[in-house]
Amino acid sequence: MLQLYFSPMACSLASRIALTEAGLDARYHLVHLRTKTVADDDSDFRGVSPKGAVPVLVLENGDRLTESAAVLQYIADAKPEAGLAPRIGDPDRYRLHEWLSFIGAEIHKAFLFPTFWYKDDGSLAKPRARITQTLAVPSAHLADREFLVGDRFTVADAHLTWALLLLRPAGVDIAQWPSLSAYLARMQARPSVRDAIATEMELRKTVPANPA
Amino acid sequence: MLQLYFSPMACSLASRIALTEAGLDARYHLVHLRTKTVADDDSDFRGVSPKGAVPVLVLENGDRLTESAAVLQYIADAKPEAGLAPRIGDPDRYRLHEWLSFIGAEIHKAFLFPTFWYKDDGSLAKPRARITQTLAVPSAHLADREFLVGDRFTVADAHLTWALLLLRPAGVDIAQWPSLSAYLARMQARPSVRDAIATEMELRKTVPANPA
Repeated sequence: MLQLYFSPMACSLASRIALTEAGLDARYHLVHLRTKTVADDDSDFRGVSPKGAVPVLVLENGDRLTESAAVLQYIADAKPEAGLAPRIGDPDRYRLHEWLSFIGAEIHKAFLFPTFWYKDDGSLAKPRARITQTLAVPSAHLADREFLVGDRFTVADAHLTWALLLLRPAGVDIAQWPSLSAYLARMQARPSVRDAIATEMELRKTVPANPA
Repeated sequence: MLQLYFSPMACSLASRIALTEAGLDARYHLVHLRTKTVADDDSDFRGVSPKGAVPVLVLENGDRLTESAAVLQYIADAKPEAGLAPRIGDPDRYRLHEWLSFIGAEIHKAFLFPTFWYKDDGSLAKPRARITQTLAVPSAHLADREFLVGDRFTVADAHLTWALLLLRPAGVDIAQWPSLSAYLARMQARPSVRDAIATEMELRKTVPANPA
């Protein structure tokens, strides 16, 4: 069985949504990101992954895979009939790469990460000034589309859904981008998304304040 | 023929290296990133890509692909016999995703990007404090490996080579990670890398100071 190391409402939420959409059973291990410990047994999370970051997906053979872009594609390809990624050979597969990269680099690493991890001693002004132009990209793309890639839900939507959810606690009101707030509402109406959020918000009450 | 919009020594260098390794002809368009203009005709680069970022790869059918992770995989898959990415279905393909994500998010977007684009008004202290732990990851990985993924040069190596090259002008001396400096020396000995750097360093003399 697959195992997912996650932290409540961290970017590993997208992997939980993907596993649920794929109908894949998994064992979930909660990680305290500030202390880098695994809640199961208080062990050192760096023993699982030296990066000390979630998600970590433990594969059936014991190998460990990190980085949302890799973990999400692994999950999608493990259950191709769920259609969570365009098939290999479909030109849309490169659009999936494009969106996973953009969300991971431009929204998460350039904005959400410093917002939640860096003390605001001047380090946040520049990322904050930039997020408006960043969000204009998915906003324009989603003006006349239901999903990011093709005409169905993919792991790129799981990824963006998580990122949009974190914008509010990061102090960005997505109401200024109607196509993004409508998209997020559609995504939150999906049982997989609703259940993942409910599960992790409940778990979040049990752990110290947890960043992106 | 493929077309690549690039800026000298920006992250699009990795795409130039990949095209050269693949033996693929391409037309190259120089972009001034600060002014967002295409050098060919001073036109607005945002007309090519609203993101205003390089690389942009124009495909044979006219579609435009952005984000290094997507562009590099497209180039690799366009010439599978060059072996620039593990074949689809090979478990190592997920290692390629993992490294492309890590380099793009953790080295480029979390460190090189703010270093070259943000004025140092306090916004750089946190990214700078973090780069040491970031570089420990590829340093440990490359201690006993010649390449990032499998036993041959892939587009992940093109990506990391570019990132390591930019660390010096960013004020980080990679001599403190012997495995990284040995790796970079090996990569720079490849004709594709040597030629790409020579071409872009020459072009760089003709353009205003250009960031990552």
